[in-house]
Order: sequence, then C-alpha cells, then structure tokens
Amino acid sequence: MPDQETTPELYVVGAGPGDPELITMKAYRVLQQADVVLYDNLANKELLALTKPDCEKLYVGKQPYGQYTPQEQIHELIREKAFSKGLVVRLKGGDPYIFGRGFEEVLFAREHGIRASYIPGITSMQASGLHDIPLTHRAVSEGIWAITGTKKDGSLSDDLRLAMQSNATVVIYMGMKKAEEIARTYRQEGNGEVPVAVIQHASLPYQKAVTGRVQDLPELIHANGLTHPALIIIGWVIAVQEGQQKGTAR
Amino acid sequence: MPDQETTPELYVVGAGPGDPELITMKAYRVLQQADVVLYDNLANKELLALTKPDCEKLYVGKQPYGQYTPQEQIHELIREKAFSKGLVVRLKGGDPYIFGRGFEEVLFAREHGIRASYIPGITSMQASGLHDIPLTHRAVSEGIWAITGTKKDGSLSDDLRLAMQSNATVVIYMGMKKAEEIARTYRQEGNGEVPVAVIQHASLPYQKAVTGRVQDLPELIHANGLTHPALIIIGWVIAVQEGQQKGTAR
Repeated sequence: MPDQETTPELYVVGAGPGDPELITMKAYRVLQQADVVLYDNLANKELLALTKPDCEKLYVGKQPYGQYTPQEQIHELIREKAFSKGLVVRLKGGDPYIFGRGFEEVLFAREHGIRASYIPGITSMQASGLHDIPLTHRAVSEGIWAITGTKKDGSLSDDLRLAMQSNATVVIYMGMKKAEEIARTYRQEGNGEVPVAVIQHASLPYQKAVTGRVQDLPELIHANGLTHPALIIIGWVIAVQEGQQKGTAR
Repeated sequence: MPDQETTPELYVVGAGPGDPELITMKAYRVLQQADVVLYDNLANKELLALTKPDCEKLYVGKQPYGQYTPQEQIHELIREKAFSKGLVVRLKGGDPYIFGRGFEEVLFAREHGIRASYIPGITSMQASGLHDIPLTHRAVSEGIWAITGTKKDGSLSDDLRLAMQSNATVVIYMGMKKAEEIARTYRQEGNGEVPVAVIQHASLPYQKAVTGRVQDLPELIHANGLTHPALIIIGWVIAVQEGQQKGTAR
C-alpha cells in the first residue's frame, strides 16, 4: 500500500557525458535523496552508488538500434513509483532536454499531479573539449549547429547544406548510421576537405577520438572500429589545435 | 620569489549559468585546490567561498559593452600566477569553450610550459529548461543553432536566414543589441510569428523570462526592462508548454 505521507516528485536529471565527476552538485544532492532511480543506457552506473541503501534502481535504457524500454512504459513507471515511493530521479546520459525526451516526461508527470523539475547536464558535445576541440573559437567558428541523425523525414542532408553555408561547428548526435550520407553531402557541396572528428565514450577512461576529412568519414569510422554511441563533429575548430602545433594558428 | 617546488598548472573551468549548485563535481574539487582563481563577470561570486583561505582571487571580468580586462592581460596573469603560485583556476560563466575564449587561454598556457586542462560547464542556453523551454522536443525541433550576436562581419542575419529554413531552435548569445535586426530578419522572411523568449540571469533567484513573438522582440525587451547579459531563444519549443496547458500539444 502506498504511504499516505508520500509526496510524489520527479527530477529529470542530466548524468553528463560519462565521467561521474561531470554531474552537477545539484544532481549529486538529488541522487542522494532519491527513493527510486530510473536510469538509461548512457548514464554512468557508478552514479547509482550515491543513492541511499533502500533506493530502488531500475534500468529503463534504450540500446541504440536495439532493444529498448518504450517511452509509455517509462511514463507509467514514473507515475507508479512517484505515488508509491516519493522522489523519483530520472537519470539520463548527457542533458535530458537535448535530444532526450526529458520534457515529455516532465509534462506527463505534471498532468498526473506529480511535481516535476529539471536539472541540466553536461551534454556530450561539450566533452569534445576534452579532446582539444572547442565548439567555438574566435575567427574560426562563431556558431554551433547540433542536429540528430535519427530524423525520420530524411532532412539531415538539407540541414547539413544549410549549416555548411555558415562557419558554424556542426555536431551530429546519433549519426553513426548516416556516415555515408554525411560524407556524400559535404562532397557534393565541395566541402569534403572540412575536418571531422568522431568521439566515442567521451570523458571516460576508454574514450576514443579520431579525426580526418569529412569526405572520408565512413572509412575513418570503419578503420578505427568505432561504434554507437558516438558523436560526429564537423568544422575547422578541429584544426585549431593541429594548426597551433604546426605554428600556423593566429 | 617563486617557490621552486611549484608545478604550474591551469584549469579553465565552466562556472555554469549562475546557480552555484550547477557547477560540476569536478569544478567543485578543483576550486577547493586552487592557489589562484581568475574569475569573470558571469561566474557566481559565491563559488569563491569554496577556495582555501590563502587562495588569491582576482577579478578579470568583461562587462558587456563596458570596461574589460584585455585578453592579453589575462594571458599574462595566467603565466605569472601559474609559475609563482601553482594551480590557477580560470573560472568562466557558462562553458569556457562555448562563446568564451577558453581554448585560447589553454593554448597560451601550453605554449609557455603550463599544463592546461578544461572542465566543461552548463552553458546558459541549457538553463532555458528551468523555464520549461527544452532546446529540442520530438516533432517540434530536432536541432539547435547557437550563434553569437557579437559577430563583427554583419553575418548574423545570414545565419538567421539559414537557421529558419530548418526547424532548429535558434539561440543567440550576447544578442540584446541586435534585437531590431533579429526581429526585422524574421519579419522579412515571413516568420515574424515564431515564438521568442528572452531569459536574464537564468537559474538565479532573480531570474526573469519573457516570451512573445520574434517580430515584437525589441518591444518585448523594452517593456520588461531586460538588459545584458541575457539569452534570446527563438523557436516553437517555446510553445510546447503553452500548447500543453491549452490541451493542444500531442
């Protein structure tokens, strides 16, 4: 039977790119108070050790292109656990409001009378800085265009064509299956020479980053044995550090 | 005289959007170890209380459109303090690699034999989620285009014209002086009805957020007495929560 004293509450919390030290102080505090944690595939499991001994920890992850917990089932769990146990933390890799479905969960909770809040997380693209790739750099890139490779309407190429007309750094989340399309689009527009980086497990001890030219993206991924989940970054910011090493940067 | 045992080291650290609890655990730890902190205008001053009693704290801020510490002087301070004191923390509001000049400082330090690392921070645009504006939302926006209003080549309008051809959420950092230009550009392309939000001091107790239509941006800013620094967000993600309240969202 539900405890009548229970106040149902939801925190949708960003777990950051991987390194457990890259969560916020606020996320750390709320995890310690949680009665239930619903965590996904990309949240570092070490974070679960922060919880109380009696905290219930449930995996509700989505494997990329594999088995997953349907969103409706996650909603149902949020409702059930918030009313039966109290404070539910929904722990999502990266930032829940950047290519996550965090806001849908917040709206669902509120519709059902559950107080719901958001705690941002360091999003994966920021971890590129750990590989000496800043997202912007004076006189090189004065914008960032982050897109997802999972768009179902086939408009990824259209977005890339728009983005490459500016000097914005292009970041593609969940784009590994689109490597051919990305390389082709840049080649077609005469931009095949633009540098690309693929970063896997950024901020973790086994992180892996490779760089090359965007026209060679599929070969780059294949030759280095990179798999999902990984982030693709395209733009001249990638060459800033190399330029510096060659003594050519400003 | 410099201590011969001193190991010169630099951490360029993101202070997050304002709320001191929104720094990372790693930033928290490094601040506690710092021998010198060089902090800017947007970093929350409360964070300085985390430092050791003998930590030297120097303000090197840039007031928007006002007095500022030249970048060269910051570089010089980094060098001087790293060699004389040891661990220098360069504390910058938001994320140092997103419209900061953090990577320039890292490159400068390394050129001078100082070990230099980066700790990402929650960037201001993520704090929009605290106002129920997610940066992406399924079937509404599947991209984010972040640009700066300080581009000197007049290409802000060009970037806006490109961005509005996609469904990307547009985020403009330091764009308050460009409100007229932004409103005009959207109007000219027939997109004046797109929702806009202006967020000032996001995540702080005195935060302020207003929403309206992008064609009315200058009036919106004026009528609500908003000033720098503030963030401008343009896109239909702003209407998701309103739609939900009216029962019209999916």
